Amino acid sequence: MTAPRLTEIDHVAIAVRDLDSAVAWYQEMFGATVAHREVVERDGVEEALLKVADSYVQLITPVRDDSTVAKWLDKNGEGIHHVGYRVDDVGAVLGSFVEHGGRTIDAAPRPGSRGTTVAFLHPKGAFGTLIELVQE
Amino acid sequence: MTAPRLTEIDHVAIAVRDLDSAVAWYQEMFGATVAHREVVERDGVEEALLKVADSYVQLITPVRDDSTVAKWLDKNGEGIHHVGYRVDDVGAVLGSFVEHGGRTIDAAPRPGSRGTTVAFLHPKGAFGTLIELVQE
Repeated sequence: MTAPRLTEIDHVAIAVRDLDSAVAWYQEMFGATVAHREVVERDGVEEALLKVADSYVQLITPVRDDSTVAKWLDKNGEGIHHVGYRVDDVGAVLGSFVEHGGRTIDAAPRPGSRGTTVAFLHPKGAFGTLIELVQE
Repeated sequence: MTAPRLTEIDHVAIAVRDLDSAVAWYQEMFGATVAHREVVERDGVEEALLKVADSYVQLITPVRDDSTVAKWLDKNGEGIHHVGYRVDDVGAVLGSFVEHGGRTIDAAPRPGSRGTTVAFLHPKGAFGTLIELVQE
């Protein structure tokens, strides 16, 4: 038996066209409030994190036309973009994943938002699911 | 201020074509194991729940060609299908949601898997996101 390596659903990321509208909707409908908001220049997105227990709803919107989320929205429309799983050691989980034949987007851990270290795994071979590993 | 009504990300649901393969993949890649497995006849799906802290990865696959998940897979391919939020009182949250102009799939709470009571909200008007409310 391998020890479980996913310690929490860190976030569910939802791509939207208008971040303020989405934030207002979650507030009105569910009383959810913004715990953190940040422009992530590297990824070309602005995100708003709504805290739900120890997890987040991560609302994301592109800030540049050439960001991957802008292209994704043009292709798919608004909706669930990816899921982030919290791990204790993103480098260790990423290394094990590659050793087991997993395909990645990020070859090595890199900075994420709110001071995290992250790595994205490829949806091909992952049942169509874009997975992000997040180490706080 | 409205009190937060979402108490946990109950699950992220991932639609797959081969449930056993998906279960084996999560086991191999992340050491995740099945906490519960059930055929939900009403929805025409079989699900496997992988526990991650107090949340689940819910792998779902159709057991009938006319299930909505079968049609969804034909249209979209495998991927993230919906997100489930845990609430204390699904009837109260659903009622408030409708009062605020929200559009639902289920007009009233109904039985879900593993003894839960659930209601689905409509992705239209919810930024393309199929949301399930789950009361344990």
